[in-house]
Amino acid sequence: MSAPEPITSYLAQRAEEINAWLDRLVPSETIPPQQLHCAMRYSLFAGGKRLRPALVLATGEAFGASTESLMPAACAIEMIHTYSLIHDDLPAMDNDDLRRGRPTCHKKFGEATAILAGDALLTHAFRVLSDDRGMKIDPARQVRVIREIATAADTVDALIGGQMADIEGEGKPTDAATLEYIHRSKTGAMIRASVVTGAIIAGASDDSVEEVRAYGSAIGLAFQIADDILDVTSTSEQLGKTAGKDMAALKATYPAIHGLESSHARARELVEEAVRIAARLGVASGVLEEIARFIIARRS
Amino acid sequence: MSAPEPITSYLAQRAEEINAWLDRLVPSETIPPQQLHCAMRYSLFAGGKRLRPALVLATGEAFGASTESLMPAACAIEMIHTYSLIHDDLPAMDNDDLRRGRPTCHKKFGEATAILAGDALLTHAFRVLSDDRGMKIDPARQVRVIREIATAADTVDALIGGQMADIEGEGKPTDAATLEYIHRSKTGAMIRASVVTGAIIAGASDDSVEEVRAYGSAIGLAFQIADDILDVTSTSEQLGKTAGKDMAALKATYPAIHGLESSHARARELVEEAVRIAARLGVASGVLEEIARFIIARRS
Repeated sequence: MSAPEPITSYLAQRAEEINAWLDRLVPSETIPPQQLHCAMRYSLFAGGKRLRPALVLATGEAFGASTESLMPAACAIEMIHTYSLIHDDLPAMDNDDLRRGRPTCHKKFGEATAILAGDALLTHAFRVLSDDRGMKIDPARQVRVIREIATAADTVDALIGGQMADIEGEGKPTDAATLEYIHRSKTGAMIRASVVTGAIIAGASDDSVEEVRAYGSAIGLAFQIADDILDVTSTSEQLGKTAGKDMAALKATYPAIHGLESSHARARELVEEAVRIAARLGVASGVLEEIARFIIARRS
Repeated sequence: MSAPEPITSYLAQRAEEINAWLDRLVPSETIPPQQLHCAMRYSLFAGGKRLRPALVLATGEAFGASTESLMPAACAIEMIHTYSLIHDDLPAMDNDDLRRGRPTCHKKFGEATAILAGDALLTHAFRVLSDDRGMKIDPARQVRVIREIATAADTVDALIGGQMADIEGEGKPTDAATLEYIHRSKTGAMIRASVVTGAIIAGASDDSVEEVRAYGSAIGLAFQIADDILDVTSTSEQLGKTAGKDMAALKATYPAIHGLESSHARARELVEEAVRIAARLGVASGVLEEIARFIIARRS
């Protein structure tokens, strides 16, 4: 399976726009503390796919929001995603030397700077989200966006909780329920928050926001299953990170528990579910359907 | 010099109230991931003075805000303060074994959990700040509070920037200007944000908010100079952390650069400035004046 041309072009185009906004929203390397801003930018501009911010844009625009009103939140979510990668790679955590084909942040800048660069990207995300000139939306809606994102990045059924469970489970046998919890929390919560954020900024109805959340849940889990499959079936060169790493660390993966065939089938099911939800949103949902299909067709 | 009875009783009383709110606002140790919530609470309830949240309350109440409306932001600021202590103590940073007389978070729970506990306290602070039931204030004002706090915890002339400069300066000769930058950023920014937050929640005028900010700047620097003096003149037992640590690490301190006498004099000057500013705020400012005096009279 390989992704159809239109959606990869769409995502490449959105990534360029997002990169330009990220460049404006993060302090320059010439502003003190220079070394810290340098490390933040090194990890932020390491060639990420920008899937989460693209989801904010695609969802928000489907519901009629302007790109400008969506970009600050889209970029804030990418900053939070990048902080989580920097901290996950640390020696005390996954101890990874390679990320997107380059030395990880602590390999390049040292551990102290990497810890602070992660802290800074997380903090700066909330600085951007609370800006008074950025989103130009009703403050009540802005507070709701901040709440959605903070909740998804928090500990309970959320980003940090998932990472903690992932670390605690290393080297131990993990059951299917625990693995699903880790996936839904560690990857799922922020992907869900991305689409929900787009819908809230656009002023979608509460019912629509919940439909969008269900779409996000489905693609979030599909994304992580696809990631697990790629870890098993790809080379390090294709991934830009160490392949087979999860297996080597005895980390639970979807294929390890359910087998490769079932994993593919489950990912396809989730994508079809997401496509059905998107189709009944009552808005032009073509891009959301394409992104759902892309999630399991990608090669890295 | 020792602090007069009334203000220490006042602070002890506020600390009790703040602890009760913190206990409600941070997930219980029985909720997964239990180990992480355990670590967050271990560091949060380690007997801190609660100076920053007390400043939120004292300032906000002086301008007429209710305690209930101030508590979520007061507690969020204490969470951010605690996250910064946990990360500063890490082996890659200051490598401290002792904090407030107990093993530091990473000594007790391991490095991975300590990194995540810090991340979680920072994130949860913004979750609390964006709650829709907590502050019960106008959303525009709520966004402004989040922006003030995120700005103070960020990199430019702020918490993380100060910590970065502090680490970069270790073992090198530091000039007076750099030291003042570190102090104003690392400690000063969050103390300033504490009083400003109280004033904003209370709906103080923009002019009053700026007066309050000047008060916060003065006590923030006085606080750090007093800290440097205590590091030089106290025992580890009195401090509950390793005394003489800054000297041993060749970290720049106020007494090392300006001498002990001048340091005392400068701290007294700053406190007198703060008292003058507080007195002309046009509100009942007795507590703010007493806290300013306490800042340099404390013994730990």
